[in-house]
Amino acid sequence: MLEELKEEVLKANLMLVTEGLVRLTWGNVSGVDREKGMFVIKPSGVAYEDLTRDSLVVLDLEGNVVEGSLRPSSDTPTHRILYCKFPQIGGVTHTHSVHATMFSQAGVELPCQGTTHADHFFGTVPVVRELTEAEVAEDYETNTGRAIAQHFHENEIEPMEMPACFQKYHAPFTWGKNAVDSVKNSVALEVCAQMALGTWQLSAEQSGLPLHLLDKHYLRKHGSGAYYGQG
Amino acid sequence: MLEELKEEVLKANLMLVTEGLVRLTWGNVSGVDREKGMFVIKPSGVAYEDLTRDSLVVLDLEGNVVEGSLRPSSDTPTHRILYCKFPQIGGVTHTHSVHATMFSQAGVELPCQGTTHADHFFGTVPVVRELTEAEVAEDYETNTGRAIAQHFHENEIEPMEMPACFQKYHAPFTWGKNAVDSVKNSVALEVCAQMALGTWQLSAEQSGLPLHLLDKHYLRKHGSGAYYGQG
Amino acid sequence: MLEELKEEVLKANLMLVTEGLVRLTWGNVSGVDREKGMFVIKPSGVAYEDLTRDSLVVLDLEGNVVEGSLRPSSDTPTHRILYCKFPQIGGVTHTHSVHATMFSQAGVELPCQGTTHADHFFGTVPVVRELTEAEVAEDYETNTGRAIAQHFHENEIEPMEMPACFQKYHAPFTWGKNAVDSVKNSVALEVCAQMALGTWQLSAEQSGLPLHLLDKHYLRKHGSGAYYGQG
Amino acid sequence: MLEELKEEVLKANLMLVTEGLVRLTWGNVSGVDREKGMFVIKPSGVAYEDLTRDSLVVLDLEGNVVEGSLRPSSDTPTHRILYCKFPQIGGVTHTHSVHATMFSQAGVELPCQGTTHADHFFGTVPVVRELTEAEVAEDYETNTGRAIAQHFHENEIEPMEMPACFQKYHAPFTWGKNAVDSVKNSVALEVCAQMALGTWQLSAEQSGLPLHLLDKHYLRKHGSGAYYGQG
Repeated sequence: MLEELKEEVLKANLMLVTEGLVRLTWGNVSGVDREKGMFVIKPSGVAYEDLTRDSLVVLDLEGNVVEGSLRPSSDTPTHRILYCKFPQIGGVTHTHSVHATMFSQAGVELPCQGTTHADHFFGTVPVVRELTEAEVAEDYETNTGRAIAQHFHENEIEPMEMPACFQKYHAPFTWGKNAVDSVKNSVALEVCAQMALGTWQLSAEQSGLPLHLLDKHYLRKHGSGAYYGQG
Repeated sequence: MLEELKEEVLKANLMLVTEGLVRLTWGNVSGVDREKGMFVIKPSGVAYEDLTRDSLVVLDLEGNVVEGSLRPSSDTPTHRILYCKFPQIGGVTHTHSVHATMFSQAGVELPCQGTTHADHFFGTVPVVRELTEAEVAEDYETNTGRAIAQHFHENEIEPMEMPACFQKYHAPFTWGKNAVDSVKNSVALEVCAQMALGTWQLSAEQSGLPLHLLDKHYLRKHGSGAYYGQG
Repeated sequence: MLEELKEEVLKANLMLVTEGLVRLTWGNVSGVDREKGMFVIKPSGVAYEDLTRDSLVVLDLEGNVVEGSLRPSSDTPTHRILYCKFPQIGGVTHTHSVHATMFSQAGVELPCQGTTHADHFFGTVPVVRELTEAEVAEDYETNTGRAIAQHFHENEIEPMEMPACFQKYHAPFTWGKNAVDSVKNSVALEVCAQMALGTWQLSAEQSGLPLHLLDKHYLRKHGSGAYYGQG
Repeated sequence: MLEELKEEVLKANLMLVTEGLVRLTWGNVSGVDREKGMFVIKPSGVAYEDLTRDSLVVLDLEGNVVEGSLRPSSDTPTHRILYCKFPQIGGVTHTHSVHATMFSQAGVELPCQGTTHADHFFGTVPVVRELTEAEVAEDYETNTGRAIAQHFHENEIEPMEMPACFQKYHAPFTWGKNAVDSVKNSVALEVCAQMALGTWQLSAEQSGLPLHLLDKHYLRKHGSGAYYGQG
């Protein structure tokens, strides 16, 4: 079932290691099949080198395990809510990558400082608030997804134009048109976070990329006028 | 003798290299067999690529070498004291990993800034005082273990809830339920130390993870209510 | 056609990965054949591990594709202008390497702080201004090349003595006597940028390499009196 | 001739790469045979992956090439002077490793902040002054060695107790009892330099390792009372 999607989700989880986004088992990627209404995700606490296509877990969008003998990632309910609330997205990545997590811990949003950022994120990457005691007690991981979706909804942020956020005190979540694309956005977020720390060391008042350059860079890679790549 | 334990201690020592925690021969891991009252440790000054199961040294908890032709790590008496004073632990790791050693050298404790930390350490990672001239003259490595144990005892810190410390002017020690687990705690400590430097650069007043989130993250991985992993 | 040049351009693009200058597909290298008036460049958005000699694109110096079935790098017009305006150069590299991009984003030029810099760059690495809205609308990538050439011309900087610049809000461009040489200059720029951040942390008033040492180091590697290497 | 020494010098030069101390061809190691009065050094500008035992150059202590068809490292005269002025040493390493070079560029000496440093360097790593215009004009590389030796002589520093220095505006030189040992000291210097930057970020007033701990750590690894390793 969903063999092609499993193959892609496996590849995307292994990219976490080759791209240097994870240590130990601190990250997970999922991908969704919108027609079937099911998503595939990494099992919980399994080392990346032990992952196989068959060890992945298939769930429906109500959160029921459809296939797989292992327990899915503890963050599965967050992935599920993101798929439900953001119908445009096809993959979700969660890591504790070092520099992006610094922004989460500090609760500092990441403005667009240059074209590396503009190539992936159309504006400032937001910080999503931490959960309340009641939300944690009720259902921590599900409410994490709800807090993210609520932030994007209330601030009228289009998820495909801003496929990333920092959850306060926690770590980044990214998404994309598919599982691999969501990992690429995690790479971009990590690098832009690292660059921002040095940019501010050099120029505490860095004023941000002018809007006409943000538009240009974002739109040469995304949308109907894009001319980057072989697409 | 203790072939299974040796295998695990060998694997744990090799993880020091693959996890980027050591340069040259600056680190060592041990594991204990509580029933037999013996522990297995890396030999002193041997390159990791030359380690074999047979090169490891077996000692009893009085510090007598029981098996092995090489001299054990110069830090062996510290490991021994930790096994004696902390009967809950099964493995000990000592490294000079870069960012954790910065905290040791600065004598700055590491507060819990986020969930990466909370997943492994239940509160602030403490700094253990440096030894006095008399303690060094008497028995440096044994007294290092005593100073750590004394700090945890006097401050009523449960070693399995806080499996790490920074020894002042020196470097970190971590422990865990077994040798591999103690290395994982060294990885977590190194990454959290690195993250803290960036978090404080972004927000000098970072206020620390709220307690209800510390509880949630620590307890979803540890104790009877844990639901992380396949356990 | 141009098989030897393609081989070198392929090798130079792969160096971007082995030298740690790129993530994902964020960089490209080209090389020119001055006799034939043609240059060879990486195709757009193709992963480095999928690059082959035949996937490279050949263009003339008017920007017409002469050979190759893939779309050339979106930065191709910038490379083309640099070849036209700087007739001394044989290769061009563009990356978003982390520390050099910090300088671009901050709009801070890189003074010569030591001999590592002097071995490659004869003075201060300049910042080239960002493009205006009109320049972006007209032809972004072509005008990027024009802005770089204009800066060097107006400030009377000899391109082979200063084979690098930071484009403001964007990232570095470097060049050299051939494709591989332009990548080496990207390596040097990245390392010097990283070193400068730490040098300024240690000594905010660092005064720059004395001129007699700049001359000595630059000239022992470059020009008729050079005695470095086997040349 | 000197085949065993060549083998060790080859190994030591390759360690520059595996230990992450060099980029491109920015480093060289030599080793000396005191009985024969000859030393073996890397050829100039040759990539590390192309090095073979036969490509190394043998010189006598007057600086004459005795064997080898390639030009020796441009830094050869500095190595030669160090062998002449410091008769205790058996190997010399020069790199532009990133963090140690920051200290050179800033002209900031490295105090002993902890035991990682004390294990290798018995006190503060000094900065050696830059050369004057006349010294550069006369013989740059030879005078570099003389300036180092002069600094150690005038300040009564024993070279084997302090096997390292930062040359101002340039980069570190280290030495040791043989070629491999000099590379190990370069590793230690690079790591201690990196650690110092973070230590000062955490505690600008860090007071330095107490003397009784410096003595203990240095002497447990060096001299007649050493008990580290299998020696």
